[in-house]
Amino acid sequence: MPKIIVEVMPKADLLDPAGKAVANSLQRQGHSAITNVRIGKRIELHYEEAPTPKQIEDAKEIAAYFLSNGVIEDVVSVSVEEL
Amino acid sequence: MPKIIVEVMPKADLLDPAGKAVANSLQRQGHSAITNVRIGKRIELHYEEAPTPKQIEDAKEIAAYFLSNGVIEDVVSVSVEEL
Repeated sequence: MPKIIVEVMPKADLLDPAGKAVANSLQRQGHSAITNVRIGKRIELHYEEAPTPKQIEDAKEIAAYFLSNGVIEDVVSVSVEEL
Repeated sequence: MPKIIVEVMPKADLLDPAGKAVANSLQRQGHSAITNVRIGKRIELHYEEAPTPKQIEDAKEIAAYFLSNGVIEDVVSVSVEEL
């Protein structure tokens, strides 16, 4: 099934308390090479058929205005996966 | 900064009420080609230096046993991003 994958992350200059908690816990477990952890979202939009260029453009707009909050989040990637 | 990106999605045969709500809303907005939406997680592990093969193996284990819940989620990808 063809999909468009939208990846959203908290902005770099924003605190991410859940990510920080995971990073601290991993360091306590001995994974000292991991300096930080950030937790974002991976959203799959499913299509019946391979998305047209227009639908890919629409998906980019949906990612920017509906799936992410531009004040605190960045859309890091919108990619098509045709399987 | 080198990163390992872990992508986690709810299992295919599991309900995803938030994703379903987004899908319904997009369909009401006229995006009828989008048949379904699934919402998962994208987790970045940050490293000071490019992760060694051992650290990549460790990250796969962390992804499976710490960052995801195997009962309800699948790790769909663990990839290295060296920037």
